[in-house]
Amino acid sequence: MSDKVHSNGSHKRHADENGEDDTVYHPETRYNDGSVKLRNPNIELMDQDILYHLALGSGSHDLQEMFGDVKFVCMGGTPKRMENFAHFIMDEIGYKLPAGTQLQDISAFSYRYSMYKVGPVLSISHGMGVPSLGILLHEMIKLMYHARCKDPIFIRIGTCGGIGVEGGTVVITDDAVDGLLRSTHELAILGKIVHRPAVLDKRLVRELKSLASQDDPYDTIVGKTMCTADFYEGQGRLDGAFCEYTEQDKMDYLQKLHDFGVVNIEMECTIFAALTHYAGIKAAIVCVTLLDRLKGDQVMSPKEVMNEWQQRPQILVSRLIRKHLAQAGHLKNLASIPSAIKSPRRFKLVQQESEAHE
Amino acid sequence: MSDKVHSNGSHKRHADENGEDDTVYHPETRYNDGSVKLRNPNIELMDQDILYHLALGSGSHDLQEMFGDVKFVCMGGTPKRMENFAHFIMDEIGYKLPAGTQLQDISAFSYRYSMYKVGPVLSISHGMGVPSLGILLHEMIKLMYHARCKDPIFIRIGTCGGIGVEGGTVVITDDAVDGLLRSTHELAILGKIVHRPAVLDKRLVRELKSLASQDDPYDTIVGKTMCTADFYEGQGRLDGAFCEYTEQDKMDYLQKLHDFGVVNIEMECTIFAALTHYAGIKAAIVCVTLLDRLKGDQVMSPKEVMNEWQQRPQILVSRLIRKHLAQAGHLKNLASIPSAIKSPRRFKLVQQESEAHE
Repeated sequence: MSDKVHSNGSHKRHADENGEDDTVYHPETRYNDGSVKLRNPNIELMDQDILYHLALGSGSHDLQEMFGDVKFVCMGGTPKRMENFAHFIMDEIGYKLPAGTQLQDISAFSYRYSMYKVGPVLSISHGMGVPSLGILLHEMIKLMYHARCKDPIFIRIGTCGGIGVEGGTVVITDDAVDGLLRSTHELAILGKIVHRPAVLDKRLVRELKSLASQDDPYDTIVGKTMCTADFYEGQGRLDGAFCEYTEQDKMDYLQKLHDFGVVNIEMECTIFAALTHYAGIKAAIVCVTLLDRLKGDQVMSPKEVMNEWQQRPQILVSRLIRKHLAQAGHLKNLASIPSAIKSPRRFKLVQQESEAHE
Repeated sequence: MSDKVHSNGSHKRHADENGEDDTVYHPETRYNDGSVKLRNPNIELMDQDILYHLALGSGSHDLQEMFGDVKFVCMGGTPKRMENFAHFIMDEIGYKLPAGTQLQDISAFSYRYSMYKVGPVLSISHGMGVPSLGILLHEMIKLMYHARCKDPIFIRIGTCGGIGVEGGTVVITDDAVDGLLRSTHELAILGKIVHRPAVLDKRLVRELKSLASQDDPYDTIVGKTMCTADFYEGQGRLDGAFCEYTEQDKMDYLQKLHDFGVVNIEMECTIFAALTHYAGIKAAIVCVTLLDRLKGDQVMSPKEVMNEWQQRPQILVSRLIRKHLAQAGHLKNLASIPSAIKSPRRFKLVQQESEAHE
C-alpha cells in the first residue's frame, strides 16, 4: 500500500515493527483512566446520541449502568449463533442469572442486530458483509464510550471458506486483506477514497494460538484472511447466478491466494481489523472453515457436523475470556454467586418428572 | 465511466438511448418461453444447487412447485418490515390462506433472511448493505431459474436519508450511483476490478410515478439515489464513532450531491440495479426518506410517525402489483377464492367474545 492514499493516520507510532502493541494508546482513543475515547468531538456535545441499529440511546438509557462492566464484545454473523454463544459462555464463566430471569435480546426492537449480555461479555450478531458489520462497529465503539468501558476486547467469531485446509479447522487471523490483497479497508468519505490500515493485535493472535490444545480433535492455525464483498463471484465460486470464468481460472486464483498465505475467505475481516485498530481497541478474529475451496464450492457436510464445527471458535474464545477474567480476579466473583441448583443431576430428574406429568 | 473497466457486457444493445427496455431480452437471460435463464452454464450441470442463505435446495425442494407462480419479488431491510408487507399485500390483493394456516418464514432455518410467500408475491428481508443484498440477489435469481418463473419483477422497498426533501417523502430511483457518483456496481472478481452498469427500468419508474395519487398526503418523487458502504462517515454524518471533517465540509458535500440530482442516500441501490439488469430482470427501488440530511443527522421523528412513513412505499408498490395482476386476470382469480369470513364485523365480535372468556 502506498501511503498516499492513507488520508487517515493511525496509532501505528505506538506499535513496533511487528505490529506489537505496547499498550500505550493513542491519546485520541483513550482517556487517562483507560476508558474509550472517540475520534469524534461532536458526540460529547450532543444532547443525546441515538444508536439506531442497537435500539439504545444515551438519553433514553443509562448506558454506563447497563454496560460499564463489559470486557469482551463478541460478534458473529447470525442471531442464532450469538444467542447460542451467550448461553455457552454463561456456563463457561459460571455466570448465574437471578432466579426467574432469562437472557433477553437487548436490541430486539432494532430488528437488525441481536445483542445478549452475560456479565462482562456481550454477544452480538453483525449480519453479513462489511457495511452491516461497519454500522455495528460504529455503534459498539460509541457504546463503549458512553458506558466508559476500560480496555474492552472485540472478537469476531465466524465461519469461512478454507484454502488448502480441512473443513472444521479453526483459523486465527493475523493479517486481513481485501479482494486485491491489500491490508486495508477502503471507504468513500465525502466523495474521496480513504484507506484505513487493517491491523490486528499480534499479541492476541499469539495468546489465542497458545490456548489451542493438543487434545483438540482439530487443527487451530494462524494465517492471512481475505475479505470479499460477495459470496459467489467475489470468492471465485462457480455456483452463483453469474459465472464468467472457468474452473481452471478459479483454481489458478485460489492457488495464487494460497501462495500468498491466505488460508481462509470471509466477508468482514478488513473492516473489523481497521475500525477496531483506528479506535485503539484490541481485536481478534477466530473463524472455522466450512469447506476446503480447493476441493469444491458447495458446503456438503451434514448439519450436525457443521453445528459442532461452529462451536470450535467459541471454545477457543471461551478459553481466552476465562483466562483474562481469572487473571483479573473476576471469574471468581462471577462463580461465587451461589447457584440455585444444588444438584444438577437431581435438577434434571425433577425437570423430567414435571415433563412426564404434563 | 470509462469502458475500459467494464469487463462485463450487458444487454444494453437491447435498450434504446433513454435506457428504455424494449422487452427483447438478451438470449443469455431468457429462454424462449420467457423464463429466467442464468448467465452461468455450471448450474444446470450440478447434481443439486444449495441456496444456503435461503435454506432451500434444488435437490431437497420442488422449487418449481413452490415458487413457479411468483411474479413479484419484494425485498427490504428487516424481517419485521417484510413480514408486515406480506400481511399488507395479502389484504391488498385479496389473497386468502386455507383455513387453519398462517404465513410461515420459508427461510427461517437459514437464520439470515426471512422469506414470506403470498401467492404471486414474495416478501424477503435483505439485511443491510451491498454484500448482504448481493448474496440474496444471486440466490433469488437462481431461485427464479429453478422455479422457471416468467418475467418476474424485483422491487426493493426501503428507508433512506433524504437530501432537500421532507421526511416521509417517497422516492422512486431512476438512477443509482455509488459514493463516487458513478452509475455502477464495483466488485473484485478473481483479483480484478469489474464494473457492472447500475441500470433500472425507466418504464417501471414512470409507471410507479403514475400510480402516486394527488390525494396522497405526501410527495412521491423521482430522482437519483446514492448507495454507500457505511451509514456514518460514508454518508457524511457527524455522529459516527469517527468524524474528521467539519459540519461545513459535510454541508458542502451534501449540497454537491443535491446539485448532482441526488435526492436520497441508502446502502443497496447500485448492486440491486446492476445485478437485476445483468440478469435481465425488470427492477425498481422505492424508498421513504426518514429525515432531511440538510437539516441534521439523527432521526428524531416518533416511532408511530416512522411506522406510518414506512407504509408509504408499500402502498405504492401494492398499487403496481394490483394493476399488473388485474391486467393479467390474476387478481380476479385470487380474489374469487371464497373467504371463510362472511361478516368481518361479526367475526370481530366473535373474537372479542372469545377473548373475554379467556
